[in-house]
Amino acid sequence: MNTVDLIKKKRDGKVLEAEEIKFLIGNYTNGQIPDYQFSALLMAILLKGMNSAETAVLTNSMLNSGKTIDLATLKGSKIDKHSTGGVGDKTSLIIAPIVAATGIYVPMISGRGLGHTGGTLDKLESIPGFRTDLSLSESKKVLKKCGAVLIGQTKEIAPADKLIYALRDVTATVESIPLITASIMSKKLAEGIDGLVLDIKTGNGAFMKSHNDSYELAHSLIKTAKSFDRRVVGFITDMNQPLGNYIGNWLEVYESIQVLKGKVKNGLYSLSVKLAGAMIHLGKKAKSIKEGEQIAKQQIQNGKAFNKFLEIVELQGGDLNYINGPDKYLKPKYSKKISSVKNGFIKEMNTYQIGMTSLELGAGRHTKDDIIDPKAGIILYKKIGDSVVKGEVICELYSDSKNKIKSAEQMIIEALKFSRTKPKTPKLIKKIIH
Amino acid sequence: MNTVDLIKKKRDGKVLEAEEIKFLIGNYTNGQIPDYQFSALLMAILLKGMNSAETAVLTNSMLNSGKTIDLATLKGSKIDKHSTGGVGDKTSLIIAPIVAATGIYVPMISGRGLGHTGGTLDKLESIPGFRTDLSLSESKKVLKKCGAVLIGQTKEIAPADKLIYALRDVTATVESIPLITASIMSKKLAEGIDGLVLDIKTGNGAFMKSHNDSYELAHSLIKTAKSFDRRVVGFITDMNQPLGNYIGNWLEVYESIQVLKGKVKNGLYSLSVKLAGAMIHLGKKAKSIKEGEQIAKQQIQNGKAFNKFLEIVELQGGDLNYINGPDKYLKPKYSKKISSVKNGFIKEMNTYQIGMTSLELGAGRHTKDDIIDPKAGIILYKKIGDSVVKGEVICELYSDSKNKIKSAEQMIIEALKFSRTKPKTPKLIKKIIH
Repeated sequence: MNTVDLIKKKRDGKVLEAEEIKFLIGNYTNGQIPDYQFSALLMAILLKGMNSAETAVLTNSMLNSGKTIDLATLKGSKIDKHSTGGVGDKTSLIIAPIVAATGIYVPMISGRGLGHTGGTLDKLESIPGFRTDLSLSESKKVLKKCGAVLIGQTKEIAPADKLIYALRDVTATVESIPLITASIMSKKLAEGIDGLVLDIKTGNGAFMKSHNDSYELAHSLIKTAKSFDRRVVGFITDMNQPLGNYIGNWLEVYESIQVLKGKVKNGLYSLSVKLAGAMIHLGKKAKSIKEGEQIAKQQIQNGKAFNKFLEIVELQGGDLNYINGPDKYLKPKYSKKISSVKNGFIKEMNTYQIGMTSLELGAGRHTKDDIIDPKAGIILYKKIGDSVVKGEVICELYSDSKNKIKSAEQMIIEALKFSRTKPKTPKLIKKIIH
Repeated sequence: MNTVDLIKKKRDGKVLEAEEIKFLIGNYTNGQIPDYQFSALLMAILLKGMNSAETAVLTNSMLNSGKTIDLATLKGSKIDKHSTGGVGDKTSLIIAPIVAATGIYVPMISGRGLGHTGGTLDKLESIPGFRTDLSLSESKKVLKKCGAVLIGQTKEIAPADKLIYALRDVTATVESIPLITASIMSKKLAEGIDGLVLDIKTGNGAFMKSHNDSYELAHSLIKTAKSFDRRVVGFITDMNQPLGNYIGNWLEVYESIQVLKGKVKNGLYSLSVKLAGAMIHLGKKAKSIKEGEQIAKQQIQNGKAFNKFLEIVELQGGDLNYINGPDKYLKPKYSKKISSVKNGFIKEMNTYQIGMTSLELGAGRHTKDDIIDPKAGIILYKKIGDSVVKGEVICELYSDSKNKIKSAEQMIIEALKFSRTKPKTPKLIKKIIH
């Protein structure tokens, strides 16, 4: 087999054979195919696509480039959730303890902040002492003990994905449905799970901005999961405004604690119990997602979810003092309340811009080597559809840098649109696909 | 400007601004943009195209990456011809002396054999002593003295093209009209010419196999030449059979000598005098291509063209003994006559395969480092439309390797198709575009 011929084949819109895809992934991973050939292939895949059979083989080749977690010795279902990422999306922190509290194993491999979106690992690491870099054997021990573990992608898992992702990032080949599918699924399948709930974000703060792209990605992910005999449910959920009211790493842990304690019943709560419900259903502890949702709500009400969260944090090295008393957490040097200059309603939120504002405040990275400030971020007191009167506080910015607060203030003001009449509020859950 | 954003722009089918193209070519040439980003860009250009304004800027950026030959001190027109390449295409060797004999300067930068096609430089170097690696100042001296010079692309000329071409070759991004156009035109414009005749080959032995692609390339080249205020004529000519009867480096020099001496009046002759005629017309020594063609024929008849050829060969270090007495040339160790196994007509020739047969015999390179055997090649005694009787010799193979003759025999037999009735012969000159 010849690499140039295979690039040409995909370039000309033809279907690659399973052996050809295996050859390409295998030889790229072992260094036989240079970056410059692989990036041309990636661009051809982005522009010409891959069918579901090709996507499944691509996923499998990437999965097989590394190790998988063998969870056969753990009795019971192992279910995970994956979100395509958005602003203020901290559902993993809430869902993992809820679902683990019902006796289902949740082996969760998460990522770091990317562009305007935050990352579960960065959020967890804002808890002093919390380790996300557990080895596979350490992870298995935690999982066995408390039913959930939240870690990062180890070197052993899907090394092909790590290489390919880094190349896609610098060659404008990120936005490809089959490449996104294989990247997500190769890591999720390596977790040794029986089932997966997918949360595909759509809207101005999502990576998939159009409805069509979001649906296409959902179907591609579901088809691929099914081709590997995994149980799967896909949610298409709104990302035309941030999820919940807190954005920024510690701020999001804080909001998660409030939800887990049953103190907050906002959109973040509604989506979390729905996603957890679907996982409980896939884990065969409920006959339907609706029944699963009721069970999820019970875990919050009876305190089991929050206790499970404490257990996870402790087993992964986190300092429980801050979970039990979040107000002890160090405050940022500066804060700034943004007030409304008129009466009316919040009509639109440029969610991408809000994500970038949070990054500007120190909650995200401009480059790989930037250090995150766990305290930085935004609290939104108002969401789309909420009324505001002149002088009322809409949101609050936190940062250790006065200059950053200044530039962020301008950014967030530009991100908000107002109307005189009450606008329609976006539906949070747009579709559930089995 | 950000490289990833520019790749994304082209990937999404948008038009790149002049400054953006300059940025990309400049930074790739100076090593600031790595191969893996540039190859993703090349694939995006291949699949999404470039308009004529983009192509002109691309050409200009590549031209400006190096030096150009300043021929302002030479009085009179400077005209060149470029062929997109085919099998048995040795018109440059015939045209340069014909046109130079009329007082027009012909500064010709040629290439080496590529895949199934031969290269003018390799053919010329089969003449013992002939140097194609003259410096720009040496070239200018030869040009001034005899009116023509035939050299290879020096390091000084369009270094961006050299880099990009090497990358295209290994990333399946060769077959792109704007990339081909910029590659050809950046080198031709560096020659300091006033006008250019283009010979775009079409058919099963050409790089452009379909009529549409050939026409598209012709129009792209002509448009680009005009945007640089150059006089230009484009020919679309047939490559569904080799041009002339000799294939292989010295064999093609031999056939060129026969044509220049007026001893052979085959298709090679017809096309050569027509192309030369167009150059003479562009060089303002004839009112029309037809008149130019008559002048070209006269140069052969009156012996001036052959004398000019001797002059060029001598000035570039070639041994005239072999030009004056071509039969003195060393014979290959083995030859093999291929005879017809039936009565009928030659109906089709797989010209690509015939080119590959010549390569197999030693006349071309499988890899960059292969050494060419100047003696190796094929003589075709029959062309499409010619009748053959059982036992009659169709062609003859030459090589220093008995094994290669054997494998080549099988290849050439497979390349020929016969019919019982006389087939239509392909029209050699399909279109002339001004």
